[in-house]
Amino acid sequence: MILFILKERKDYSTLKEKLQGSSASYKFLNLYGKNLLLAWPDSEAEKISDESVEIAVKTKRPYVLASNEWKKEPTRVKVKDVEVGGEKVVVAAGPCAVESEEQVLTVAKAVKRAGASLLRGGAYKPRTSPYSFQGLGEEGVKILRRAGDEVGLPIVTEIMDTKDSEVFKKYVDMVQIGARNAQNFSLLKEVASIGKPVLLKRGLANTVEEWLQAAEYLLYGGNGDVVLCERGIRTFEKATRFTLDVGGMVAAKTMTHLPMCADPSHPAGKRELVHSLALASVAAGVDMLLIEVHPNPEKALSDSEQQLTPESFEVLMNRIKALASALGRSA
Amino acid sequence: MILFILKERKDYSTLKEKLQGSSASYKFLNLYGKNLLLAWPDSEAEKISDESVEIAVKTKRPYVLASNEWKKEPTRVKVKDVEVGGEKVVVAAGPCAVESEEQVLTVAKAVKRAGASLLRGGAYKPRTSPYSFQGLGEEGVKILRRAGDEVGLPIVTEIMDTKDSEVFKKYVDMVQIGARNAQNFSLLKEVASIGKPVLLKRGLANTVEEWLQAAEYLLYGGNGDVVLCERGIRTFEKATRFTLDVGGMVAAKTMTHLPMCADPSHPAGKRELVHSLALASVAAGVDMLLIEVHPNPEKALSDSEQQLTPESFEVLMNRIKALASALGRSA
Amino acid sequence: MILFILKERKDYSTLKEKLQGSSASYKFLNLYGKNLLLAWPDSEAEKISDESVEIAVKTKRPYVLASNEWKKEPTRVKVKDVEVGGEKVVVAAGPCAVESEEQVLTVAKAVKRAGASLLRGGAYKPRTSPYSFQGLGEEGVKILRRAGDEVGLPIVTEIMDTKDSEVFKKYVDMVQIGARNAQNFSLLKEVASIGKPVLLKRGLANTVEEWLQAAEYLLYGGNGDVVLCERGIRTFEKATRFTLDVGGMVAAKTMTHLPMCADPSHPAGKRELVHSLALASVAAGVDMLLIEVHPNPEKALSDSEQQLTPESFEVLMNRIKALASALGRSA
Amino acid sequence: MILFILKERKDYSTLKEKLQGSSASYKFLNLYGKNLLLAWPDSEAEKISDESVEIAVKTKRPYVLASNEWKKEPTRVKVKDVEVGGEKVVVAAGPCAVESEEQVLTVAKAVKRAGASLLRGGAYKPRTSPYSFQGLGEEGVKILRRAGDEVGLPIVTEIMDTKDSEVFKKYVDMVQIGARNAQNFSLLKEVASIGKPVLLKRGLANTVEEWLQAAEYLLYGGNGDVVLCERGIRTFEKATRFTLDVGGMVAAKTMTHLPMCADPSHPAGKRELVHSLALASVAAGVDMLLIEVHPNPEKALSDSEQQLTPESFEVLMNRIKALASALGRSA
Repeated sequence: MILFILKERKDYSTLKEKLQGSSASYKFLNLYGKNLLLAWPDSEAEKISDESVEIAVKTKRPYVLASNEWKKEPTRVKVKDVEVGGEKVVVAAGPCAVESEEQVLTVAKAVKRAGASLLRGGAYKPRTSPYSFQGLGEEGVKILRRAGDEVGLPIVTEIMDTKDSEVFKKYVDMVQIGARNAQNFSLLKEVASIGKPVLLKRGLANTVEEWLQAAEYLLYGGNGDVVLCERGIRTFEKATRFTLDVGGMVAAKTMTHLPMCADPSHPAGKRELVHSLALASVAAGVDMLLIEVHPNPEKALSDSEQQLTPESFEVLMNRIKALASALGRSA
Repeated sequence: MILFILKERKDYSTLKEKLQGSSASYKFLNLYGKNLLLAWPDSEAEKISDESVEIAVKTKRPYVLASNEWKKEPTRVKVKDVEVGGEKVVVAAGPCAVESEEQVLTVAKAVKRAGASLLRGGAYKPRTSPYSFQGLGEEGVKILRRAGDEVGLPIVTEIMDTKDSEVFKKYVDMVQIGARNAQNFSLLKEVASIGKPVLLKRGLANTVEEWLQAAEYLLYGGNGDVVLCERGIRTFEKATRFTLDVGGMVAAKTMTHLPMCADPSHPAGKRELVHSLALASVAAGVDMLLIEVHPNPEKALSDSEQQLTPESFEVLMNRIKALASALGRSA
Repeated sequence: MILFILKERKDYSTLKEKLQGSSASYKFLNLYGKNLLLAWPDSEAEKISDESVEIAVKTKRPYVLASNEWKKEPTRVKVKDVEVGGEKVVVAAGPCAVESEEQVLTVAKAVKRAGASLLRGGAYKPRTSPYSFQGLGEEGVKILRRAGDEVGLPIVTEIMDTKDSEVFKKYVDMVQIGARNAQNFSLLKEVASIGKPVLLKRGLANTVEEWLQAAEYLLYGGNGDVVLCERGIRTFEKATRFTLDVGGMVAAKTMTHLPMCADPSHPAGKRELVHSLALASVAAGVDMLLIEVHPNPEKALSDSEQQLTPESFEVLMNRIKALASALGRSA
Repeated sequence: MILFILKERKDYSTLKEKLQGSSASYKFLNLYGKNLLLAWPDSEAEKISDESVEIAVKTKRPYVLASNEWKKEPTRVKVKDVEVGGEKVVVAAGPCAVESEEQVLTVAKAVKRAGASLLRGGAYKPRTSPYSFQGLGEEGVKILRRAGDEVGLPIVTEIMDTKDSEVFKKYVDMVQIGARNAQNFSLLKEVASIGKPVLLKRGLANTVEEWLQAAEYLLYGGNGDVVLCERGIRTFEKATRFTLDVGGMVAAKTMTHLPMCADPSHPAGKRELVHSLALASVAAGVDMLLIEVHPNPEKALSDSEQQLTPESFEVLMNRIKALASALGRSA
């Protein structure tokens, strides 16, 4: 695989001719304001360079666009007016599942007041059991949209089915791909085409490399606004629900230009562990946190044991701010 | 959760009235020739039984329909005239990916001759990298259909997207759900409605319990023709591509009435390990094997290292037959 | 299992009589200044209480002495004049292996200057391969002792064999039990009797519960001066050498009164990841860090890729201090 | 690392001179009737060959003596008159723990009658909890010895401490190294010197490669009579106690000349799964099985849920014999 960064305002017709004359696979795309050409395999791609090429980056990694080999500066993803990947540690908070207009609005106000920058909430819910609450679907998305608008927070929510992309185009600010769909390649291709920023969770059994390859599907589909989200991998340990792979986040940051988010709620599984995992993630260098907050966690229709109360979330926000400040950032 | 097995040709109107008067969630469905009623939570469900109920099965397991608590006899799944779950160990064989009409037909003839009962081949391919061969899609399905028809073998192939269900309804005999989509609940719901037998692979990081819950989605959707397929889980060991969980297959057999398939090709990752894993699976009691065979493995567009040659497959079939015979089965 | 906390200066003769008359297993021991009696099974133990008992703690956990059910206040472990488990985050630093007098002394001076409180270094080395450098043994311990004395730092080093306990009694301030020996129960029993503080690493495949049970062997052997050390567990992820289980550390802290140490060097496997893992551990609440520092990492006889230079360690110490301060601690 | 297979009855003095003149590390040893010389690193070792060298084997694997690169024919290990690694699948059976003279003798007679070739039983017991039965120690070894002698079966039992090697030299026919001590390198070195055949279990978190490196410690110590034993690795799955890594056994067989044993009892964790795992192991090609049998499993002092009754063991032996026969072996 060779990535050619092309000079601007050039005529690429010679390049195209060469490509058509070769047996290389190739793709032109524009990402982060750059005209790019991908071509492979190397043996064929090596032949096609001409003067319209500024830099040619040959990689041995199984991902290219998501790699920091060609793009050294960290990518900043804008979700409306919120920037992920900059100096500020951005916090998205809200309920695991959208249950009602009132529930969401109560939480939205509380997390906004405490300093969250984004409102999260699940409308389409991937549940292990068919007998669990499956979410409110499109109606849930609309509830979230209204709450976000009322308190002034962009919204992030999960997509589960390629059939629902119109709903996400219409109502959602940031599209989440969940851990169970982290290698649902049809969904990745569809979401690339929605044209909204994406929060891409790592699959429970995905290596960092596979996670970056999933991101590559999005970038290859023309969408560079991708935030990676570590939410715990599956290991033998059962004292926590999942194992938050802090080392994996840190390693990924050395491999990619994309911003990193941590979800401390799912690996914790228990409320009392969420604070420490959130703080550890910030100290490890994440750009964003995704935290479950519910007005009355005991009564929640899902994940009742790991959602924070608004009061506890406020305490956590203050601790995050102090920590970020000691690290030369804000929150 | 209580499962009520209802008497036949009875009037269920009292039952329905009681249900509507309660706050229980419930569902009527017909599976394996039985009229069933599921109701939950227990506290509500306990109140509704009447004389139209033959047996009430209360379970603490997170799956009910897939459980052998109510259905002791093993389920036999018919894929056209091939029965999975009976005395015979059924073998599905064919290429990892459908590459061309000629390739598939060559393999189809070879595996038929060696004793395979089903033809497998991937048309929609879930690939870790966007730069890998993504499969021929609908065209691939049609090629597989024609080859199956020509040699007289039912076909099994993987679905990746809810949007493709019409193609599968029209052309496919057994619908495979792959490991990466093992908890793609939208897809599970859609596939339940296709009305074809399903080969449900276990996810790389799924517990046996979660795998049975995925099957529960299919049964709950009205489709009882489900074969479970173990294909290796993800562990720390890298001497094999995945870790074939023979114990998990054996444990699952003590929990469910559904038949069990093993895929020895993916966990092996290398041709020379496939035979032993296939034989171990048969000795462990599986009802079906799914084996990758390619006319020229070195030139395969995917999984080239683990596909058997037709010659090696024939040797394996003979070993399987000898082994099955020693175990009181056939193959 | 019942733990009886006994009143002081009481006559326990009635208690002993009752115990001898019962079929209970039991043990008297003194830990943290308390007279304790352990008795099991519950059915027998319940009968023996008398007025010399202050509190009886019945537990369902598989460890008792290490549990915070009976001892709420965190334990502080004194290694000479260094206190682990108090307000200060204590840092032990030094080379992976003791290679020479000069090497150790150079590092010892550097880490002391940068703010380390303890000197670490391996003399008996558990190496995966018999062809790797096996350590200098007793001679290495003496070198470490001399260096520690010269710069004024207590020393911590690993024991591998019950036969070597005299060496550790004589020269060592804190005895480390390594990950490979985390369930070497003969060694745990022997080390309990040495009478020195212990740094107990978690085994690569040990659950938090098993780790606390290993600590229980030490406490049951009469040694309450135990610091738990997380050093990464084995998972499928290979982007890091091991997976630092931050959640496991946090969960353990909710289960035990013993102080917690993190070793960021081994899970990192690569120098450039060590800082972030160290900071994450401090933010997660550890009381101690164990960090590999070598005067010339490239030339190290073991773990050359993960040891910090003295310069990098100094930068890290400054970052740790800033972070600890933001968390209301010191370092 | 280069392994030199030396010509017999030759003068190696030139070779020794060259070695002393070089900076190579080296070791002469005799294994399987061959005079061998190991020398490393390659750059130095390459210089020293002379006419007394028959073959020089250069390897990139991290183990040499255990590798099948230099020794193609499978090693047969003799435990008294029982051969492991030949045509016959050898079964070692007996209780998890030696509890009493009567218990062991009852089992010994039963397993002998059913066709076992070796008597197993634990005297030194590695227990996760200090409150569990710790075994009868030396007294237990003697009980096992007497029972073995009475029924005419060689005995295999586990060593836990380097201090106990005299007991094993005196009484034991095959020395077992348990999973928790699989990387207890002091113990491996000590056991190499006992001069008895060794049954080396794989550690719960050890890769196949690390397992072979542990075997390398034994061979390097001059003991070539090593049988590898897979007993289940630790994974996320909890439906079984451990995950029997059948693929790992099969992969190891392609890497080493040493015979392979499977322990189906520990991964099963439940009696009803043991048969299937034993049969799967035989089909996968193991040379030996290690099976727990107790006269009254419910009353066993350890592992009560996974030990077979003598009756069930007899049934299993008959199934193993039928299967071995179908595979061209005996049992």
